[in-house]
Amino acid sequence: MEHVTISASGAQFHVAKTGTGEPLLLLHGWPEFWLTWEPLMERLQDRFTLIAPDLRGFGKTDKPVEPFGPPDHAKDMIALLDAFGIKRAGVVGHDVGGAIMQPLARSAPDRLVGLFFFDFVYPGIGPRMAEPDRLKEIWYQSFNQIEMAPTLVGATRHSCKTYIGHFLRHWAYRKDAFDGVLDAFADNFMQPGNLAGGFAHYRAANAGRIAMMKGEVPNLPKIKVPTCVRWAEHDPLFPYAWTDRLGETFANLDLAMFSGVGHFPHREDPDRAAKEIATFFGSLQ
Amino acid sequence: MEHVTISASGAQFHVAKTGTGEPLLLLHGWPEFWLTWEPLMERLQDRFTLIAPDLRGFGKTDKPVEPFGPPDHAKDMIALLDAFGIKRAGVVGHDVGGAIMQPLARSAPDRLVGLFFFDFVYPGIGPRMAEPDRLKEIWYQSFNQIEMAPTLVGATRHSCKTYIGHFLRHWAYRKDAFDGVLDAFADNFMQPGNLAGGFAHYRAANAGRIAMMKGEVPNLPKIKVPTCVRWAEHDPLFPYAWTDRLGETFANLDLAMFSGVGHFPHREDPDRAAKEIATFFGSLQ
Repeated sequence: MEHVTISASGAQFHVAKTGTGEPLLLLHGWPEFWLTWEPLMERLQDRFTLIAPDLRGFGKTDKPVEPFGPPDHAKDMIALLDAFGIKRAGVVGHDVGGAIMQPLARSAPDRLVGLFFFDFVYPGIGPRMAEPDRLKEIWYQSFNQIEMAPTLVGATRHSCKTYIGHFLRHWAYRKDAFDGVLDAFADNFMQPGNLAGGFAHYRAANAGRIAMMKGEVPNLPKIKVPTCVRWAEHDPLFPYAWTDRLGETFANLDLAMFSGVGHFPHREDPDRAAKEIATFFGSLQ
Repeated sequence: MEHVTISASGAQFHVAKTGTGEPLLLLHGWPEFWLTWEPLMERLQDRFTLIAPDLRGFGKTDKPVEPFGPPDHAKDMIALLDAFGIKRAGVVGHDVGGAIMQPLARSAPDRLVGLFFFDFVYPGIGPRMAEPDRLKEIWYQSFNQIEMAPTLVGATRHSCKTYIGHFLRHWAYRKDAFDGVLDAFADNFMQPGNLAGGFAHYRAANAGRIAMMKGEVPNLPKIKVPTCVRWAEHDPLFPYAWTDRLGETFANLDLAMFSGVGHFPHREDPDRAAKEIATFFGSLQ
């Protein structure tokens, strides 16, 4: 694994990089950083060049001036491709990464070979996100925005590990998926600015999320970049039933259920995740 | 101020008691305990006997075996009146206290002279509680139920003070209302079992709250005990507009706005609060 620091879009990005072949840009979610992709990178490095940045605010990458939402991250990613001299890349993402891929695909479709998503937020989820029975799953989207959140979560390393670990276990179906890296995640989010850097996403995304919950999302043109979505069977955060309107956002969609996993298919079943990714991008060449 | 320990309903209750005259039972909210009533008690002690228990789970009172919701607290309060040899009492409450007063009034109306409420949850709030724009105010109702909550909030005294202090300031309109007792509140909630003891309310109340948000609350008979509600003008948690359906729950209702305060009228403007309480219970004698 090569670790490089790249200047792009006015910030220093930490990027983990490995492999040879066509480039795949890997966009992590919250509460994650590049390391979440390591099992996939090991499995795909003989066929692809894997580029896994810490998104702005996360890991060893510079922290944002708030607000910094998906369209801002999308600009960062284009600048990163420029810095690497990459004309076109495949993009793989989930969660926050999936939120970034939508404005990325609308603003720079010519730079993208294809989009591969695991579970993420898109407009068609709509008011279902905030139904009364779902409140127990989405409280963190509000909590992460409030001023005391970094203080409370970062009070001690144990507090941080408790909070981050809660989501990595609760959202997973294979509960031990992050056990081997939980300390690395806790250390990572305890780095100065990293908790606030991740929470910045929730502040920036709030208005759009509220609009979605009210069913007031503007009608955007469909994304035409070839799209593959493998949505988990057992994601407590984003149920599979919510895939029913993906066709309204993606014109060229290959959707299937990813069985036996929760919110983190790339960590819970990296063998199948790698195979799905290789098959999709292989089909586009 | 007299502090007594009372055995009732299988538990030891800490009760603060002062004054002479007709008895008033004072039921605190979350995150509070008897001390929240001290300014009112000072102002009313020449006309009433003030009885301010720590509810089960709070302060120096025994901790509940979960679940322990408003009907359970209501039974506790009847047992407490029995233990004091009080046949009939006036009851004053807000927040959790107000939630308790409803089953109390339905199960033992003959024990109650009158009900005086500051802001609280009642069925007529309905789905408004969980509208998308309100999620930033109600996340704590979900967070307080999860397993990690006592660990995270109780990680350090500073964590506890940060969390409890957040609500005491955020929900107030007069932001300094609790400044003089904030350390006492932090010390109180750091006592073993007190964070979990308060959170137990949210676990027990969850099913009823979800039903309310879905508009599926059963039609209960109206409460006929004379009722006075003084609802804050500036409560960010429970807006005054939500008083519009109080008449569906209370048959004998005197409602008015309490201007210039937020969620804690008893602490934010104890002079007017004491006057309103004395006037109401004076009118019933």
